[in-house]
Amino acid sequence: MQPLPGFRDFLPNDCATRNYVFARWREVARRYGFVEWDGPVLEPTALYTKKSGPEIVAQLFNFIDKGDREVAMRPELTPTLARVVAAHDREFKKPLKWFSIPQCFRYEKQQRGRLREHYQFNADVIGEASVEADVELIALCVDLLRAFGFTAEDVVVRISDREFWIDFLRTHNLPEAQWQEILQAIDKSEREPREKTASRLGPLAEPIFKILDEGGQSEKLDRLLASLKNRGMAEFVKIDLGIVRGLAYYSGVVFEAFDRGGKLRALAGGGRYDNLIQQLSDGAVSLPALGFAMGDVVLGELIGETPVAKKKMEEAIADHQNLDIYVVIAKEERRADALAQIQSLRDRGHRVDFPLTPMKVGKQFQAAEQLGARLAILFGDEWPQVKVKDLKTGDQKLVPQTELLNDSTTMSTLRGRTNSLPPDLRDSSPRPE
Amino acid sequence: MQPLPGFRDFLPNDCATRNYVFARWREVARRYGFVEWDGPVLEPTALYTKKSGPEIVAQLFNFIDKGDREVAMRPELTPTLARVVAAHDREFKKPLKWFSIPQCFRYEKQQRGRLREHYQFNADVIGEASVEADVELIALCVDLLRAFGFTAEDVVVRISDREFWIDFLRTHNLPEAQWQEILQAIDKSEREPREKTASRLGPLAEPIFKILDEGGQSEKLDRLLASLKNRGMAEFVKIDLGIVRGLAYYSGVVFEAFDRGGKLRALAGGGRYDNLIQQLSDGAVSLPALGFAMGDVVLGELIGETPVAKKKMEEAIADHQNLDIYVVIAKEERRADALAQIQSLRDRGHRVDFPLTPMKVGKQFQAAEQLGARLAILFGDEWPQVKVKDLKTGDQKLVPQTELLNDSTTMSTLRGRTNSLPPDLRDSSPRPE
Repeated sequence: MQPLPGFRDFLPNDCATRNYVFARWREVARRYGFVEWDGPVLEPTALYTKKSGPEIVAQLFNFIDKGDREVAMRPELTPTLARVVAAHDREFKKPLKWFSIPQCFRYEKQQRGRLREHYQFNADVIGEASVEADVELIALCVDLLRAFGFTAEDVVVRISDREFWIDFLRTHNLPEAQWQEILQAIDKSEREPREKTASRLGPLAEPIFKILDEGGQSEKLDRLLASLKNRGMAEFVKIDLGIVRGLAYYSGVVFEAFDRGGKLRALAGGGRYDNLIQQLSDGAVSLPALGFAMGDVVLGELIGETPVAKKKMEEAIADHQNLDIYVVIAKEERRADALAQIQSLRDRGHRVDFPLTPMKVGKQFQAAEQLGARLAILFGDEWPQVKVKDLKTGDQKLVPQTELLNDSTTMSTLRGRTNSLPPDLRDSSPRPE
Repeated sequence: MQPLPGFRDFLPNDCATRNYVFARWREVARRYGFVEWDGPVLEPTALYTKKSGPEIVAQLFNFIDKGDREVAMRPELTPTLARVVAAHDREFKKPLKWFSIPQCFRYEKQQRGRLREHYQFNADVIGEASVEADVELIALCVDLLRAFGFTAEDVVVRISDREFWIDFLRTHNLPEAQWQEILQAIDKSEREPREKTASRLGPLAEPIFKILDEGGQSEKLDRLLASLKNRGMAEFVKIDLGIVRGLAYYSGVVFEAFDRGGKLRALAGGGRYDNLIQQLSDGAVSLPALGFAMGDVVLGELIGETPVAKKKMEEAIADHQNLDIYVVIAKEERRADALAQIQSLRDRGHRVDFPLTPMKVGKQFQAAEQLGARLAILFGDEWPQVKVKDLKTGDQKLVPQTELLNDSTTMSTLRGRTNSLPPDLRDSSPRPE
């Protein structure tokens, strides 16, 4: 009776929550001129080991398919992005601004904020080396968070630059083979006792701690910060050279978004990966690139803990879930008339429900309330008039059924929702005769 | 460089097509009072063998996970529905009207209209035995097709009743063990030479052919047809006792939707399965139920072959994909001013893009056209005025940049799209300072 461990059933309320999150992600991404794409849920396992090494297999839902192919359920979308961009390089003018909302899978120990599947908003800019692209991407991350009702008191995006540290390590003549070790020690420094970090850093401990404590000089980060300030986002971001991100392929600006309280895992993270597409496409295509991902699980936790965001979500979901009209069939002789009217109302885009079998009138009104209907329209003794009741105000009135669709009071009550349908959701085709 | 055989990459245009189909499915289902739910992509393999027998495994993407569980990527959603409904039986008032848009997976030989993954709209009514539920479900199927612009000349829903045939077989004293064989022979009769069907049907061939040729008497189907006629759908449906559907668990009314030309596979199919939930929940819950599914692949083929439907889709996609505003930065000194304005426009919900690096003005206008922008706003020599150009009409005018957001001509050009955002997609939070 249970889903597999780490997997979720989405009952109607969970599904509405999921769709609310997707809708905001999509809307903000579109405002920024990003277009949506997607890849397959199943890919050759080699696509992932090529990027992350053979160790990744321990975390994959991988298997051999009936055609003897080694395949895996996608743990992330970036390798697919590199594959698709390399395969279609000539078809698209650069820079690409692409986003996607894949479901991703990892066989991991379950913890708070971490399941075995999650949905992940991904945005990437491909083919643009300028720091303006980094700014655009970080601004998108901030606006995604703002769209859920979070303020600068709720969230912060911490920004750093790998290149700053690479320059530092070069200046200190550290052999390249040791860079990754030092970068990972910096990445972990916030979560480890200082002595432990110090022993990892060795002779570089002193200058590195100085930078972590007092900040470092970076013209690139200054420019980036000024540009975010210009967009009105200064409060939402913070330069923090302690952010390095564990993955070896990041090559420039990196960033992570957190709740201000610091109680949760990262809400989002990403950065510039200028060499990855070349590596993953075996040198077929070389393009500067950057991107980030935001998962649905930690985000959902923070929404639940933030009253303004929670209220905003609940109102949007109610508006999305609620019926417009519940048709009360008080006399079974009127069922056929009611059904013809229901069809006309639905043809106009209204959300209409009714009892599929004879039911007491009181029960029907109960159902109307439970389904969040705005209006009840009663077909009964008043025929050929129908009784229209506003379930919010309690107002009711009789309307000749032939006039129902032209009755301005009735229809204006519903207009808010109906007009709110975007054109591609409206069905203007006439009712078939 | 290729996805796995039978799997699709969704480049931006493919993704927009997919989302267009999903949007219409969702919108029509909501009009009918159905609410959305979903289940996991991965389930225990036993969930599927319990419903379909061990033979199904040959068609599954199944494997043993790292916790030694036998698991499979879902080939369909109905077993998950039975699991979820049984687990949460007491939480929801019946009847349930639930829909979902799962991606489903089958390891099959690829053919036209059949890949190894597809998306499938599923709608089910749980807990309602009345034939009105069958009518509601068939009407939903018709309206889903109408929403894509199909008319009764493009599509037809063929309706039959398993119970009619069961009664027939009982009347003819056929042992129950042979029912399924006869039903499958009827199901195949349309696609096989009559002699072959006759030999399968044996002594029942004559009366069965009579019914297939001349029709049979069914009060239930007459009532169902009258009710669909009452909803204005007579032209879209046809009683056809030759439809039986292969699966053993159907227990009552069954139906399939086809293109009128009969060139494609079924667009949709389903029916009543009153005993399945009891069987799948090991008797824990017994509920009458009915449902149908409509896949995205055959539907997409028919849209592509039907000019009206194709045009409708292309217009909706263009409207969804196109930018509102492309900001042309003619002088780099104006970049910061332009960016501040871009942020304000995006905060109001407009879709705005701009060049991330310095670019010739002509190239920028090219980009604006390629991205489908409605307006170009040029920041250059005219500062502190900006030049607003309507890219559809060619009209242009100068507006003081401080007045841009209040300029009624400019904003009314865009109003159509901005107001069309449903409330749960609008972001009304103020711009951060």
